[in-house]
Amino acid sequence: MQDLASLAPILGVIGLAAAGFVYYQVKSMSAGSEDMQEIADNIHLGAMVFLKREYKIVSIFVAVAFIVLSVALSPWTGVAFLTGAVFSMLAGFFGMKAATRANVRTTQAAIDGGTASALTVAFNGGAVMGLSVASLGLLGIGIYFYFTHDTLIINGFAMGASSIALFARVGGGIYTKSADVGADLVGKVEAGIPEDDPRNPATIADNVGDCVGDTAGMGADLFESYVGSVIATMAIGATMASPLPLMTLPLLLVMAGLMASLLGVFSMRLFKNMNPERALHMPTYVAGALFVIAAFGVVRTTMPDLSAFWAVLAGLLAGVAIGFESEYYTAAKPVRDIAEASLTGAATTIIAGLAVGLESTVLPVLTICGAIYVSFSLNGLYGIAIAAVGMLSTIGVTMAVDAYGPIADNAGGISEMSSAGPEIRAITDRLDALGNTTAAMGKGFAIGSAALTALALFSAYTRTVGLETINMTEANVVIGMFIGGVMPFLLASMTMKAVGRAAFKMVNEVRRQFREIPGLMEGKAKPDYANCVAIATDGALSEMILPGLIAVIMPVVIGLGFGAETLGGFLGGATVTGVMLAIMMSNGGGAWDNAKKYIEAGAHGGKGSDAHKAAVVGDTVGDPFKDTSGPSMNILIKLMSIVSLVLVAPLLAG
Amino acid sequence: MQDLASLAPILGVIGLAAAGFVYYQVKSMSAGSEDMQEIADNIHLGAMVFLKREYKIVSIFVAVAFIVLSVALSPWTGVAFLTGAVFSMLAGFFGMKAATRANVRTTQAAIDGGTASALTVAFNGGAVMGLSVASLGLLGIGIYFYFTHDTLIINGFAMGASSIALFARVGGGIYTKSADVGADLVGKVEAGIPEDDPRNPATIADNVGDCVGDTAGMGADLFESYVGSVIATMAIGATMASPLPLMTLPLLLVMAGLMASLLGVFSMRLFKNMNPERALHMPTYVAGALFVIAAFGVVRTTMPDLSAFWAVLAGLLAGVAIGFESEYYTAAKPVRDIAEASLTGAATTIIAGLAVGLESTVLPVLTICGAIYVSFSLNGLYGIAIAAVGMLSTIGVTMAVDAYGPIADNAGGISEMSSAGPEIRAITDRLDALGNTTAAMGKGFAIGSAALTALALFSAYTRTVGLETINMTEANVVIGMFIGGVMPFLLASMTMKAVGRAAFKMVNEVRRQFREIPGLMEGKAKPDYANCVAIATDGALSEMILPGLIAVIMPVVIGLGFGAETLGGFLGGATVTGVMLAIMMSNGGGAWDNAKKYIEAGAHGGKGSDAHKAAVVGDTVGDPFKDTSGPSMNILIKLMSIVSLVLVAPLLAG
Repeated sequence: MQDLASLAPILGVIGLAAAGFVYYQVKSMSAGSEDMQEIADNIHLGAMVFLKREYKIVSIFVAVAFIVLSVALSPWTGVAFLTGAVFSMLAGFFGMKAATRANVRTTQAAIDGGTASALTVAFNGGAVMGLSVASLGLLGIGIYFYFTHDTLIINGFAMGASSIALFARVGGGIYTKSADVGADLVGKVEAGIPEDDPRNPATIADNVGDCVGDTAGMGADLFESYVGSVIATMAIGATMASPLPLMTLPLLLVMAGLMASLLGVFSMRLFKNMNPERALHMPTYVAGALFVIAAFGVVRTTMPDLSAFWAVLAGLLAGVAIGFESEYYTAAKPVRDIAEASLTGAATTIIAGLAVGLESTVLPVLTICGAIYVSFSLNGLYGIAIAAVGMLSTIGVTMAVDAYGPIADNAGGISEMSSAGPEIRAITDRLDALGNTTAAMGKGFAIGSAALTALALFSAYTRTVGLETINMTEANVVIGMFIGGVMPFLLASMTMKAVGRAAFKMVNEVRRQFREIPGLMEGKAKPDYANCVAIATDGALSEMILPGLIAVIMPVVIGLGFGAETLGGFLGGATVTGVMLAIMMSNGGGAWDNAKKYIEAGAHGGKGSDAHKAAVVGDTVGDPFKDTSGPSMNILIKLMSIVSLVLVAPLLAG
Repeated sequence: MQDLASLAPILGVIGLAAAGFVYYQVKSMSAGSEDMQEIADNIHLGAMVFLKREYKIVSIFVAVAFIVLSVALSPWTGVAFLTGAVFSMLAGFFGMKAATRANVRTTQAAIDGGTASALTVAFNGGAVMGLSVASLGLLGIGIYFYFTHDTLIINGFAMGASSIALFARVGGGIYTKSADVGADLVGKVEAGIPEDDPRNPATIADNVGDCVGDTAGMGADLFESYVGSVIATMAIGATMASPLPLMTLPLLLVMAGLMASLLGVFSMRLFKNMNPERALHMPTYVAGALFVIAAFGVVRTTMPDLSAFWAVLAGLLAGVAIGFESEYYTAAKPVRDIAEASLTGAATTIIAGLAVGLESTVLPVLTICGAIYVSFSLNGLYGIAIAAVGMLSTIGVTMAVDAYGPIADNAGGISEMSSAGPEIRAITDRLDALGNTTAAMGKGFAIGSAALTALALFSAYTRTVGLETINMTEANVVIGMFIGGVMPFLLASMTMKAVGRAAFKMVNEVRRQFREIPGLMEGKAKPDYANCVAIATDGALSEMILPGLIAVIMPVVIGLGFGAETLGGFLGGATVTGVMLAIMMSNGGGAWDNAKKYIEAGAHGGKGSDAHKAAVVGDTVGDPFKDTSGPSMNILIKLMSIVSLVLVAPLLAG
């Protein structure tokens, strides 16, 4: 069965072809009226402009890193790095392309065929991203594994993926929130026009932001986790006795996962007539069940015992559990508690939300610890890595569900902007609300997988550099832990401030347009959407550079300056505080958001009440929490681990 | 010189006598008009009621712990525990007694003799607390060290001190904030009467709260650090070759520190005519300089080389540096940034303050790492502990400056309630503002000392239990780190919710009194101060129990359930996240508070402007941050370490 691994690149190509097939299926649908097409084209254009300019800036970084890696390590590591970076960009490009085609077609499908049709289009749009992420990952790793079993080279691929991820997540997070705040604050609050009103100059940027943040950002994040977990497992396997089967296993597992995901994605046509809340979960269940069976078979035939299978299962279940835990904290009693706290003003709303965020760290951390315990006790460090692979194998379908969210959100925006009428808006609203639930679960899943992947990469680092122990009774390790632990706090502060600055510029631009464009408020003149898009783009891109560089440079400074063990402590400290802050910010932000929606649905006086005003403050604080700073933590902890593994470990060992 | 150590108890008694002398000096001053005396008596009574009821509840816990320790370890450990608990309570009692006598006499001194007199009385009132803490600590450790060099027994004293600290800090923190919110929200906002207006039913509780939180809470916190650092040093020393001089050194150092503090306290009479901003810092400088000279002499005559002296110096300087770093983040540009963010509403105020809090973790963490690096590279783990001792030796005078703050605050309240006139209020306001600066520095110092003490106790734990390594490449250690790391998040959430619940009850009671007591608003009838005091007391006491029990029980569960190394990881993880959260919450809260004051002083439209309203939201969120949850972290990390050292280590080793 091990020979099957050499088919990985072919399976990757097949997956890509399937993604292409789904894409053309989506694209062949009607894009609706001319009005709708114009709006959608604006969003599409804005997204492509952002991507192009982001990739241009990132290219400079990639080129420098390519040279450094080629000189310091080997040209092939440099080439692998380049491939990883390009593949991550490609996944983002495909996903965005599909999302910005699917959004308007979802609206039109709602008009033509109702809920089931709209659900299918939105899901298929997301599936392009999901399948692209999984297939490109498999293709890249498969090729390098086919030609070389040298982990020093293969690791480069993961570092390439990781570097793009940071810029995409941080940049996308800043973009989406600055556009969101600009559109809401000036449009909704100051000018008093509804959300997604075409007179609002920032409305296109706002819709672009949903794609840029939730599609491209999340995609790059999960692509990084996916590639990182597989490569960490290979790197750990390579250091053990009889490495080949141990290195092949993760590849076989993600191959099984991709096939299961393909079947899951195509199974959607069986479920589309169920109510959408159930239907959207079905492909995940199908793929999960198929994958478990396949994983059992793979482990049984290639391994001496079933222990690796239990690790895979532990990872998979932990991912599901963390998703549900996130959903609890962003949907159930905690949200109602925050809504109640809104009755006594903004201050108590903030305190209640922070308390929810802080508390919500407990269960996911225990879940991660459970997965670590099960997988490690059966398989050692290798087990932790293979558990991460298990969690991420069915990324094709998990990511599809995630990427569905912003498409449904966009579809709602387009139906509003094109005045599609209340019945259509009701359909897109329902699909959008469903997207909020899957987004919460997806964020939890992203954090959980980032935590396990970071630990896997950390383990791979310790094995590669030959560390028998990272001893916390030594001062250098304690110092490393403290400095590492403070990194997520620093990055959280930087990204929150960045959103503030970028949003400030956007607010000023929207105000300027309302003031200076005659006839805009009366609907006689069109706003300058492109300028808002340009401002959001510039703001996000200029603010993403410093956090990105810090994350890449710090492990090098610590590792080369203070040695391998201190760097180990550094990574450990960063992972612990990074995971906590990520969960706290993600869930706290989501809970505030939903508390506001709960009040808007009629509780505590509904829209316009004092409680609602207080809840809006909570939601505004929660926005950078859940969409910028929180998700940035995921990347930070993975990227710092991977830089340590790829760049620092060989230098220290050599 | 080592024989001098046996004089420690005698020096402790001398210190106590000096504290008594200062107390009677303060008490002999005029307590002013009958009006003033009545107000002061109410505050005094409220504080004593709280202390008595707190101590009654704590006694149950102390009795149970005494039995457990006596049976599980040895009766003498139980007795030492009991002594530590009683001494901590005594220090709190003396300090509160002095503070609630000095407050009204500060107001009267301002009337009789102006700023210099008032400053002296307030400082002397604080000095009683400072000298009591230092002297009782020295007395207790000195006695046990004289009769036995068995660290298993002496450690019990530290655990006694630590247990009281948790309840005092958490309970005091909840008390002060619930009273504060109740007084402000209903009195200032709803009824529109000024701060400290005698018609406000919660105003006495509010003033009691200042003493309960900032005097008793801070005192117990620093008493714990002081005792903990000395005992950790002894415990580490006991495990090394030729232990006696290593065990004696910390005792000699704190003896030198107490003498330096005594001279520092009494030197205040030389400086009282300087401007108060400078005068208040002089005793600290005098004591610090004297202590450095004495420490040099002690190390030179009792140690083979000067390495321990450099550790002491590193600790001392780190404490000073962290104080100044805290002051920067709660006074300078960061505060102006938050004030500016208030111009765009409450949400941006919150985001700006959180960003300041997050960022403010970086410098203190680097400072702590610097102290660890210097002290460890010269002396190993022993060095970290001796650095903590160095930081805390002059606690007599550091604590005096800290305890000055709430006295000045109270003096302002009394001058308002007794209508003492604007010139008097100007004096007390100036002294109060100075108290806010020293409070910020004091909080920074408390966190820094807690971090070093926790690390010292952690080191003592590893040495006592005989752990050669706590290996972060083992899964159980990683699991320990994660579970430990989540503890501060859990405690922060619990304490923030507790403040909310307690404040809610207080708000309802104040509203009830305004509604049901006829003639209250017209000043014809008196409010029922006592009932508000009772509600704040009940709320605080019932809410402090669960967090306290969790902190004590968790290390036992982890240690006995998963072994010594996992517990080591647990303590490491908790210390890292606990220190970060403590700094973030403390500085963030302080910065919000001062941003509000900055606006009230006239910036951005001053009082009543929209910016001011936004800043009030920030301040209200900051209150539980800086006075309840943040400071609770200090105790949590020390207490969990000390429980591990005292209770778990012997059980695991035995």
